[in-house]
Amino acid sequence: MAKINDNFLKLPGSYLFSAVAEKSAAFSAAHPDKELIKMSIGDVTLPLAPSVTKAMRAAVDEMGTAAGFHGYGPEQGYDFLREKIAEKDYIARGANISPDEIFVSDGAKSDCGNIGDIFSTDNTVAVCDPVYPVYVDTNAMAGRAGDFIGGKWSKLIYMPCVEENGFLPELPKERADIIYLCFPNNPIGVAMTKEQLKPWVDYARENNSVILYDSAYEAFITDENVPHSIYELDGAKEVAIEFRSFSKTAGFTGTRCAYTVVPHELKLGGTELNPLWNRRQCTKFNGVPYIVQRGAEAVYSDEGRRETREAIKYYLENAKIIREALTAAGFTVYGGVNAPYIWAKTPNGETSWDFFDRLLNDANVVTTPGSGFGPSGEGYVRFTSFNTRENTIKAMEKIKNMNL
Amino acid sequence: MAKINDNFLKLPGSYLFSAVAEKSAAFSAAHPDKELIKMSIGDVTLPLAPSVTKAMRAAVDEMGTAAGFHGYGPEQGYDFLREKIAEKDYIARGANISPDEIFVSDGAKSDCGNIGDIFSTDNTVAVCDPVYPVYVDTNAMAGRAGDFIGGKWSKLIYMPCVEENGFLPELPKERADIIYLCFPNNPIGVAMTKEQLKPWVDYARENNSVILYDSAYEAFITDENVPHSIYELDGAKEVAIEFRSFSKTAGFTGTRCAYTVVPHELKLGGTELNPLWNRRQCTKFNGVPYIVQRGAEAVYSDEGRRETREAIKYYLENAKIIREALTAAGFTVYGGVNAPYIWAKTPNGETSWDFFDRLLNDANVVTTPGSGFGPSGEGYVRFTSFNTRENTIKAMEKIKNMNL
Repeated sequence: MAKINDNFLKLPGSYLFSAVAEKSAAFSAAHPDKELIKMSIGDVTLPLAPSVTKAMRAAVDEMGTAAGFHGYGPEQGYDFLREKIAEKDYIARGANISPDEIFVSDGAKSDCGNIGDIFSTDNTVAVCDPVYPVYVDTNAMAGRAGDFIGGKWSKLIYMPCVEENGFLPELPKERADIIYLCFPNNPIGVAMTKEQLKPWVDYARENNSVILYDSAYEAFITDENVPHSIYELDGAKEVAIEFRSFSKTAGFTGTRCAYTVVPHELKLGGTELNPLWNRRQCTKFNGVPYIVQRGAEAVYSDEGRRETREAIKYYLENAKIIREALTAAGFTVYGGVNAPYIWAKTPNGETSWDFFDRLLNDANVVTTPGSGFGPSGEGYVRFTSFNTRENTIKAMEKIKNMNL
Repeated sequence: MAKINDNFLKLPGSYLFSAVAEKSAAFSAAHPDKELIKMSIGDVTLPLAPSVTKAMRAAVDEMGTAAGFHGYGPEQGYDFLREKIAEKDYIARGANISPDEIFVSDGAKSDCGNIGDIFSTDNTVAVCDPVYPVYVDTNAMAGRAGDFIGGKWSKLIYMPCVEENGFLPELPKERADIIYLCFPNNPIGVAMTKEQLKPWVDYARENNSVILYDSAYEAFITDENVPHSIYELDGAKEVAIEFRSFSKTAGFTGTRCAYTVVPHELKLGGTELNPLWNRRQCTKFNGVPYIVQRGAEAVYSDEGRRETREAIKYYLENAKIIREALTAAGFTVYGGVNAPYIWAKTPNGETSWDFFDRLLNDANVVTTPGSGFGPSGEGYVRFTSFNTRENTIKAMEKIKNMNL
């Protein structure tokens, strides 16, 4: 008899965001008159930049002609895009990354999950706690997480990010082979300076560990001393894979484009990882739509830069409004300066889900329960700054009027 | 120390189509004056249908407005597309498939590879020989193929498709847990009738095996008694997952849209596979671009149907020209009636790669060496019918003039 991958049966409940969506839908069904304000999933709301839609419209036109038609593209992405990424996102910041170290994909979520394919299943894996669930769940599916017992996976190394350590993880005491770091951080919204990131690169170099660095929120960085890429640090190319996305940078959540950097210097036991990931992508992926890659390319034009930065500014202003309003209402909040996320402590020691329910019922505001991101997220909820200005202000008004 | 997945190191040489591309590029570099005609990779050449570009242009416009903007869509695909697929591709053919059994994705290649995630690594896997390399390589990466020894993977069950059995596989004598079937077939271009497919469904039901049915070429079927979907057979919903793609049906090779059907009736040891695949996709995938899904939807409009069928007719006419020209030149050829592929026996018992080189050098025609698809493909090359009419005719002229 064919056998399923039993690891799937170990996964608890449903995927966090699906659970939040279901609760919201149930509320809306029961209260069709109430308008919900969603500050939960990290989904953008501003339309695509005019330079992006212009480029995509031109690409659609091309695809409708014999001369301009594009069939299968390179699995790694078109050179026109890989070269722009290398130049503007790396060389310009002093990080010497070449186009053939860049793999364009349909999403950082896909890549963060699929990257596991090239690693042995018996690596030890360290994750921040709380953490973006994809890192944990994909490792659980692959058998690297062990069993889910008492709210924790038996084989994972959890690195608590709590008030006491300023929400920054401490180097694991156990030997971690693979370390996931996401900075600016999701869900907490804090960032690491170059000095704070350096010990991690050193640790990985000393232990032959690999850092999987998720930099999906780099566009939100406002502090000068926060690196946009881990490759801004010396030696990082020998130990780190970096994930980037156009989702939050340019509003591509429904347009789907991202990229992963696997430097040639990154080797394990003498084997370069770049050709392994290349082989994985060539075998299990067929590239990003030509139209979408043309749209992503436009993000790097002067006009595209200006337009997408305007959007980021808008979201960061929302973040400021949320931080200030919640603080004024007596909440303790973190994040939201170099990231679109605000991490708010629940009042009265309520659990995350209890306070989530109260916000849903009393303020009609949807957040994400911190405990859904891991045990150390208990007692927090995450607000995102991706809603409209109007809705953000309205949500803060409603929370202010709640019986906290 | 972090450890790589050693299975990657067992993979021989580079991915078949990359090897062909490299040889072609080397030839072009050495002979810049010679124009190559590519009849190798199965890539379409006709532009996207006007109804498709019209729908995508409208979707791009929507994405540029606040009201029409679409962020994250459902990982499984939008209802508007899933409903069309269920209705037009299944219900209309008497196969009772519901929208929630359909998972829209970026490609059948991705899905054929990623589907392995939900199966245990100790299943025995049967593949046709020759075969689309993705089935083999992805199982090798996952450790299900064993070691590559003497041109074969030690743990795979090979089902030879050779002249003697009319290029149709015979039921495996060993117990196969997972069986890949691709009909109309790639690379051989032959199809199975309902009667020929029935024993496979029966075998799978008796042995609790799962059939992974790749139906990417169903649009090319011209014979009445060839099923377009395995679900046209009674009981198939209990044993089969089906892969479909817009790549060949509607020229989406550079636009990227496909879907996978996992029926609710399909269970292993009482566990439904549909929620497992759903969980996999929700965790490691973020859906297909809204713009692309609107394009795919347009394929099902009356206009879209008419336009895409015209394109298929054009390619099938090319296939006929290739079959007839090669036959006239003394070749023994198969396929090309219900599929865009023609399987030609090499002259004088030459190896596939030797004859590939001769075709490249003497006729400047690029084919795919049959041996690249598996040991039983030795002594054949594959022609595709996806080039222009003009180039197809030109290529046949050049081959006719070769010293065969």
